[in-house]
Amino acid sequence: MNAEIICIGTELLLGHTVDTNSAYLARELAELGINLFHKSTVGDNLNRIVSLLRQAWNRSDVLILSGGLGPTQDDLTREAVAELLGEPLEFREEAWEEILSYFRKTGRSLPESNRRQAMFPASARMLSNRLGTAPGLFVECNGKYLFAFPGVPRELIGLWEEHGRPFLKRLLSETGHPVLTSKMIRMIGIGESAMEERVMDLIQNQTNPTIAPYVGKGDVLLRITARGNSEAENHRRIDEMYHRVQERLGEYIYGTDEETLEEVIGRQLTAKGWTLATAESCTGGLIGHRLTLVPGSSAYYLGGVVSYSNRLKTDLLQVPESILQEYGAVSEETARAMAEGVRLITGADVGIGVTGIAGPDGGTEMKPVGLVYYSVALSDKTVVEHRIFPYDRSGNKEAAAQAVLTLLWKMLR
Amino acid sequence: MNAEIICIGTELLLGHTVDTNSAYLARELAELGINLFHKSTVGDNLNRIVSLLRQAWNRSDVLILSGGLGPTQDDLTREAVAELLGEPLEFREEAWEEILSYFRKTGRSLPESNRRQAMFPASARMLSNRLGTAPGLFVECNGKYLFAFPGVPRELIGLWEEHGRPFLKRLLSETGHPVLTSKMIRMIGIGESAMEERVMDLIQNQTNPTIAPYVGKGDVLLRITARGNSEAENHRRIDEMYHRVQERLGEYIYGTDEETLEEVIGRQLTAKGWTLATAESCTGGLIGHRLTLVPGSSAYYLGGVVSYSNRLKTDLLQVPESILQEYGAVSEETARAMAEGVRLITGADVGIGVTGIAGPDGGTEMKPVGLVYYSVALSDKTVVEHRIFPYDRSGNKEAAAQAVLTLLWKMLR
Repeated sequence: MNAEIICIGTELLLGHTVDTNSAYLARELAELGINLFHKSTVGDNLNRIVSLLRQAWNRSDVLILSGGLGPTQDDLTREAVAELLGEPLEFREEAWEEILSYFRKTGRSLPESNRRQAMFPASARMLSNRLGTAPGLFVECNGKYLFAFPGVPRELIGLWEEHGRPFLKRLLSETGHPVLTSKMIRMIGIGESAMEERVMDLIQNQTNPTIAPYVGKGDVLLRITARGNSEAENHRRIDEMYHRVQERLGEYIYGTDEETLEEVIGRQLTAKGWTLATAESCTGGLIGHRLTLVPGSSAYYLGGVVSYSNRLKTDLLQVPESILQEYGAVSEETARAMAEGVRLITGADVGIGVTGIAGPDGGTEMKPVGLVYYSVALSDKTVVEHRIFPYDRSGNKEAAAQAVLTLLWKMLR
Repeated sequence: MNAEIICIGTELLLGHTVDTNSAYLARELAELGINLFHKSTVGDNLNRIVSLLRQAWNRSDVLILSGGLGPTQDDLTREAVAELLGEPLEFREEAWEEILSYFRKTGRSLPESNRRQAMFPASARMLSNRLGTAPGLFVECNGKYLFAFPGVPRELIGLWEEHGRPFLKRLLSETGHPVLTSKMIRMIGIGESAMEERVMDLIQNQTNPTIAPYVGKGDVLLRITARGNSEAENHRRIDEMYHRVQERLGEYIYGTDEETLEEVIGRQLTAKGWTLATAESCTGGLIGHRLTLVPGSSAYYLGGVVSYSNRLKTDLLQVPESILQEYGAVSEETARAMAEGVRLITGADVGIGVTGIAGPDGGTEMKPVGLVYYSVALSDKTVVEHRIFPYDRSGNKEAAAQAVLTLLWKMLR
């Protein structure tokens, strides 16, 4: 079964509104195991809407329309569906009653233009909308299905949950469709193409489950998707594939599904009963910000120092003046002294230190923009690494934070 | 001139990624005055991509493609464009050199599969990508234009700014299109509807320039857009409207166009010759991160302390133990002591302190989740304010950072 999403509204083509409806519907369809091959956006123009609907009606089994059901002259979804079906629009008393009662409930007066919202193509069913004035619309015709929902996300979600999802779920089970289950594997410390090479044979010989690479934000991802008669059967298939991936890429896997690196680090620290403190120079606080995005992080994260100036490095972090003079603020020695210093002054079990040149200025031939030294200090050892990142200021800061958290994650394993 | 945007990638059809590229490009096209009638998304399937490209190439003058330029077997944009043009793919030595040098710079090894990224349709031009490995692609054919950009937002924006926008701008002016110029007015400390009410007559009576409200991220925006024969003419129109807006909303305006609040604060500090230090609790480093996103911020931002634990508040920031015991860590008194403490220990001219309950846990009846006290300390006075934010953990952190930076901006005026 193939579905298609069509968003209707000129505001989407002006970029005033970021469309979240279609990503929501896409996720919902994927969870139901319905293929989505096309997603389109079209402005408030009857000819263009109808032409797009004809094409979609031709190639897909389920059409989901978002937007264009409001009361204004710009709202053309009802007209377009009527034209697609070759049917007249007719006034529905029951829809009008519902709109009237919604207005009464909210104590607002009802403009005459709202009568348009009670017009339906002859064969369409009305979908009640308890969260707004625009009823939805449903058409079944020759084994094809069309849903039209209002574009307001809250109302669209409401109508989808009440009408769209249950209908399609029933339809799928009646027609003997399989259940779809998936799991995302999250990796760090390896590039996308190097990761893919190690599992290329699995990707190419995939049938069920399928396995596909994704680019994450600072991590690389593999999604395993199984299709079967039950969730339990799918989980068995996924587990088996997960173990095969783990054999080849286990050292890079830090989490699954929606887990973040900072959450995983939080669990590692909690398991060891350790506390953490940070000494940030070029990242300016970003590492602390990420660590504290995790609910309950105050149990293991003590805080730390943003030592943007050299004076804060010596005064607060006790980095020896001589190190700064001999090796410079961006050096292996300074990164080490920062990590060990913040560990010492806060009494934390683990200290982090990061120093680098985020750019765009401040680079030299020996120390170019993007050069970052980062360090993790434990009670018995301190590790320092360095990298040269090629990004802009913001990208270099993000990459530096990700690099030191990756090192920390490895050392806590 | 009509443009069309096509996003390529199965991940977009699974809803894993919310597409922000097309809204960005839509705004950019609107600013150039280029019509956008269609926006589509298609998965990593060669036939479907080619069929969509054929249709778009037929009905639009400018095609902008996003995604599908990576090194994996799933990345099919190069193949699809070659098929659209009826041309073979050829290996481009100069593209390969560029990819090689990017990898060398980042010190990573280069998998053989990346050679795919150096393949181009015969008549396509390569667009250098300094922010990633995937070069872009440009085709000009019978008065039609096709741009293909990588799907990573940072890289897409980079290539658009360097190649796409300047090319189209030149093309428009050469073909005698009216020039479009716009200016964004950025405000804080006022809500969207309150702002709109004060300029409703200007919005309703607009012709040229037009004026339209936008929702920002932590700020509220008004965009003025003029259409004329020259930039100079447009600027005169815009300036006149800007002054009318300023008369009514001047006290809330902190900047224009792409200016950020932290940039404006940086200029305020530089003008006074003052330095700044931060003491962050619930924001965890986010304020330092934002301040250090500004190039050159090391000239006025000294750094500070992330005092997530109480011990760091007393040990590093010298917040009296008695204040924490009597009033608690989330209190007016603690926020004040943090701002004054960090000012003292760093020797900065200005100190910031923030303490609050980001949630989702940790709230009480007296001190609910979302309660934040924030303070700015100058040499002659310290101001403390508090707010109760209704967001999730991440949203409350962001709102708290924005609130204290707003207070700082006001106090530096």
